[in-house]
Amino acid sequence: MKKSTFPTPQDAEAAFYEALEAGNLEAMMEVWAEDEEIVCVHPGGARLSGYDQVRESWAQFFGPGRRFKVQLSNQVVLSGMMLAVHSVHENILVPGEPRPRLPIAATNVYLRTGNGWRMILHHGSPAPQPARTGVESPKILH
Amino acid sequence: MKKSTFPTPQDAEAAFYEALEAGNLEAMMEVWAEDEEIVCVHPGGARLSGYDQVRESWAQFFGPGRRFKVQLSNQVVLSGMMLAVHSVHENILVPGEPRPRLPIAATNVYLRTGNGWRMILHHGSPAPQPARTGVESPKILH
Repeated sequence: MKKSTFPTPQDAEAAFYEALEAGNLEAMMEVWAEDEEIVCVHPGGARLSGYDQVRESWAQFFGPGRRFKVQLSNQVVLSGMMLAVHSVHENILVPGEPRPRLPIAATNVYLRTGNGWRMILHHGSPAPQPARTGVESPKILH
Repeated sequence: MKKSTFPTPQDAEAAFYEALEAGNLEAMMEVWAEDEEIVCVHPGGARLSGYDQVRESWAQFFGPGRRFKVQLSNQVVLSGMMLAVHSVHENILVPGEPRPRLPIAATNVYLRTGNGWRMILHHGSPAPQPARTGVESPKILH
């Protein structure tokens, strides 16, 4: 049974990135729905599905004591009553490195459950260039 | 104004992959919602947002006359009233190549509009290994 409740998808997203920065496996898995149909694609990684696979992947990821800061930018939110889809750029700041790494484009999907919103999908992939545009600053292509 | 109507997310998904195989830009853009908040991440590419950027990216992609077959596998469907999220493996078969390439993990999101379901997000990334598991054949990790 989950201890935390996230009243909005934004609350679940904040908790996801807090757990990521803290390297806290239990806090991370609080955010995810306990469901066999959850999906996680780490940047450069295979698609994982089901609670056990997803948990195992985060346990491995947090294992080496990796710590970093994540700044989000260019958030696009697509919301329904039961599902919410957030597209964000994750800008990773590693201690000792002067500049952020190239951003990760992430798609995060949240499900409204009887006990608040939970993550059901995270799909991250390296974005090869800085954000060319966002909702804040549309670029004219033609 | 869109000419086609897709009564279900599955219909929109079928039309998306038909347009992709056919290299048909107009058919491809029929599938997408005309919205400034649509998002497309091609495998290995930057995140694109807005109808014009997404259209331009498909025009470039279809330009060199690339043709291939796409077989989908390991579909996971997460559906709400207004949004549907499909996670699939795209297995790309290129003419002249004996075997499928490594799969692409794709997240496809569809929105229910006044005129049927439309794609609002496509996020593809190369999956470095064959599907380790799927809903059809869950793997025990522990």
